[in-house]
Parts: sequence; structure tokens; C-alpha cells
Amino acid sequence: MKRAVCLLSGGLDSATALACARRDGFETFALTFDYGQRHRIELEAAALVARHLGAAGHRVFRIDLRAFGGSALTADIAVPKDRPLETASADIPVTYVPARNTVFLSIALAWAEVLGSSDIYIGVNAVDYSGYPDCRDDTLKAMQVALNLGMASRFVLHTPLMWRDKAATWALAERLGGAALVEAIAEDTHSCYLGDRGRRHPWGHGCGTCPACALRRRGWEAWQGGASE
Amino acid sequence: MKRAVCLLSGGLDSATALACARRDGFETFALTFDYGQRHRIELEAAALVARHLGAAGHRVFRIDLRAFGGSALTADIAVPKDRPLETASADIPVTYVPARNTVFLSIALAWAEVLGSSDIYIGVNAVDYSGYPDCRDDTLKAMQVALNLGMASRFVLHTPLMWRDKAATWALAERLGGAALVEAIAEDTHSCYLGDRGRRHPWGHGCGTCPACALRRRGWEAWQGGASE
Repeated sequence: MKRAVCLLSGGLDSATALACARRDGFETFALTFDYGQRHRIELEAAALVARHLGAAGHRVFRIDLRAFGGSALTADIAVPKDRPLETASADIPVTYVPARNTVFLSIALAWAEVLGSSDIYIGVNAVDYSGYPDCRDDTLKAMQVALNLGMASRFVLHTPLMWRDKAATWALAERLGGAALVEAIAEDTHSCYLGDRGRRHPWGHGCGTCPACALRRRGWEAWQGGASE
Repeated sequence: MKRAVCLLSGGLDSATALACARRDGFETFALTFDYGQRHRIELEAAALVARHLGAAGHRVFRIDLRAFGGSALTADIAVPKDRPLETASADIPVTYVPARNTVFLSIALAWAEVLGSSDIYIGVNAVDYSGYPDCRDDTLKAMQVALNLGMASRFVLHTPLMWRDKAATWALAERLGGAALVEAIAEDTHSCYLGDRGRRHPWGHGCGTCPACALRRRGWEAWQGGASE
């Protein structure tokens, strides 16, 4: 069975990307980074997702990007509660971590080589996070070329969510695994920027009002309202 | 003063690349990786080089690539004592660490962004290590394009040693800083695969016979014999 390394943050998108890798016939090896994110709950969510979505392996790789400072997701900068993340903007969101996806992909590549895998899945999309340059389609495609030139063998970076917003992602999850997969993803994943897991909404756990919760909730509502993939 | 991040392994090439960055007018910030290499002496060598070659800052970034296994430089595989590293070959040397330079460059990029730097120096060359795909000129140029697409600002990857063999590197060091720089580099740097630092040869410390020492020694001898940059 072919193997794929799947970047797994513990959020909705990476969980759905992992489900895509299984749909595509891969034995999945989930890779989560302990990079000094504010909320340890993301790591617990990733472990739940890996278990419930049938990953053959799950590694948590520790790398301290806080050593360099520079982002609201890891450093001591207030997370903006009301800034609409989903707004397309030329600005870089304050939650940007320098070179994060680039670092994560290069480490995923190292693991893929050791596993004898040629396939890496990453749940980035260019719709919700248009302000993040490392989620752009151009970036991921150029990265595949550059990574392959630097390696002894060839790899494919799969980005099944690149052109899907959150509504389309929920719809995709339903097609891949029906209501059971949707429920597993809603229950296990974590998106809330405030690390709030106390309250369970139909779309999952979270404060319900931070930009990440609002994005997820509106996607759910749009999907329930009939939005398709 | 403009800033540059300089990847500093503690060997001859990265030390010379750091000297090039100073020559080019940069305030230099040396970045060394503690990636589970066999010989801690490389980290000590890097600290000496950073101090003696006037780096404005030096960070040792810890990342455990051994978590994935796969190379003689980090794992429990015997290092080949007599395999001629300098032989151009389509084979990948057993000392290859999966995706190492790719990982290191992406982290250097993160630090550069935080420092407000647009320039990264890396002492790779395509002459001595033709078997390492991540030292190819194509790879580094494609990587610059991919990294820049993923970032909010533009960066340059400088590879001043790309087309220089070891003799040309010694000659370059002499031109940049005369006999004093050559002596500092010979004394401070470490290349020996066996981690042997006991004996001091004209070209530096080392066992004198492993592939890394042989390469360095022959380069020195060719330079002494009149080889130029």
C-alpha cells in the first residue's frame, strides 16, 4: 500500500485533507508540529483525529519557532478577536508565523523519504487565508519543484483543499465519509484561537466568536444552507 | 547596516561563506543547527568561528532530524572511511541527511524575516559534493523562487562557494582576510567525520584520512601548490 505523509494541525482543514489521502488509497502517516503554539489543545486534537481517521502512524515533531518571535500564534502579542480572517486582503494577518508551512513541508519531506513515501498532503487553502503567502497555490507548486530538485527522488505535494472554502470543506467531508466523518471531525478538531474547548456547537468546540470560530461556524451554516463542494 | 543570516556548520565552507557576507557589507547573524549530528565538536567549532569572524549574533537552533533516521551523519550507520566523497557521482552519499539543507534554509528564512534581513548565505558547493542534490545550483535557485513566493517580502540566497572546490575556497579566504583569516579558519573549523580534533595539521584539526579530512587536505595542498580561485 502506498504511503502518504499528512500534515495534521488538528484543525478542520488538515483533518479533511487526511481523509482525502485515505480516499486516494494511501496508508496515512500524520505529522503534527509542536512549534510553541499557544494552545496545547491543538496537539490533543491532532492525536484524536489521527486515531479516529485511521492514520497508520502519528508523529509529533518538536520545533521551537518562538525562538525567533514574530507572530500572534506563538508570541506574546494579543490575538485580534474581531479581525475577519476570511476577508481577502493584501495584508499579512498578524497570526502569520514566519515561514511556517515552508519549515513544516521540508520536515514532512524528510519523513516521507525515510518512509519510502512520495506523497505529502497539506490542507492549505487559498480562499480563507488569502493573506498568507505560504498558502498560495503558486507557492505550493513552486515548492514542489524546488523540493524535488533537492531530493534524490520525486515527491508530490497534494493540496486537496486549495480552492475550497469552509462550506465546501464540510461538504467534501460528508461526501468522503458521510455524517460519521463530519461528526468525528466536528468533535475532534480544534480551531478556536482562544483555546476554548468548553462549549460544543453543531460545528464543533470553541468560543464561537474569534475569527477562527466565526469562519468555521459560517462555513458550517453555509453548508447546511445548501452550499456544495 | 544591512543584515544577513549565515548558515554556519562549523566547517571550512560555511566559515568562508560567513567571511564573504562580511566582505559584502553585511552585519552577520550566524545560524547553527543542533540536529543530532554525531560530533558535538561541530557546534563548538561554529561558536569559535562566529566569535573570531565577527558575527553580530549566533544562534544554535535545536532540531532533531534523527527522529526520522536515515543518514550516516546522524544515525547509527558506520561512516565509510575510505569512500572518496570528492568523486563526482550520481549516487547519493551515505552521509546524506534527508532534506537537510531544505530544512535549514526554511528556518534561516524565518529568522531572516524576524531580523528584517533579506539575505541568507549558505556555503554549499556543487563541486565537492556533486552527489548531494540539495547542494545543486538548480536546487538553490528554485528554492529562492519558492521561498519568496511563500513570504511577505523578497530574499536572496547567496551561494558564494557554489563553483569553488576546496583549493579555491582556501584561496578565497586568503584574498578576503589574508593569512590571519586562513589561520583562524584552519584553527577554528571542524570537518573530520570521526570527530577527531587532537592533531593539528597545517590545514586544521582532524584524523587526516577520513573523506572529509582528505578533501580538505588535498584542497590545501592544491592551493599551496598554486591553485587559484
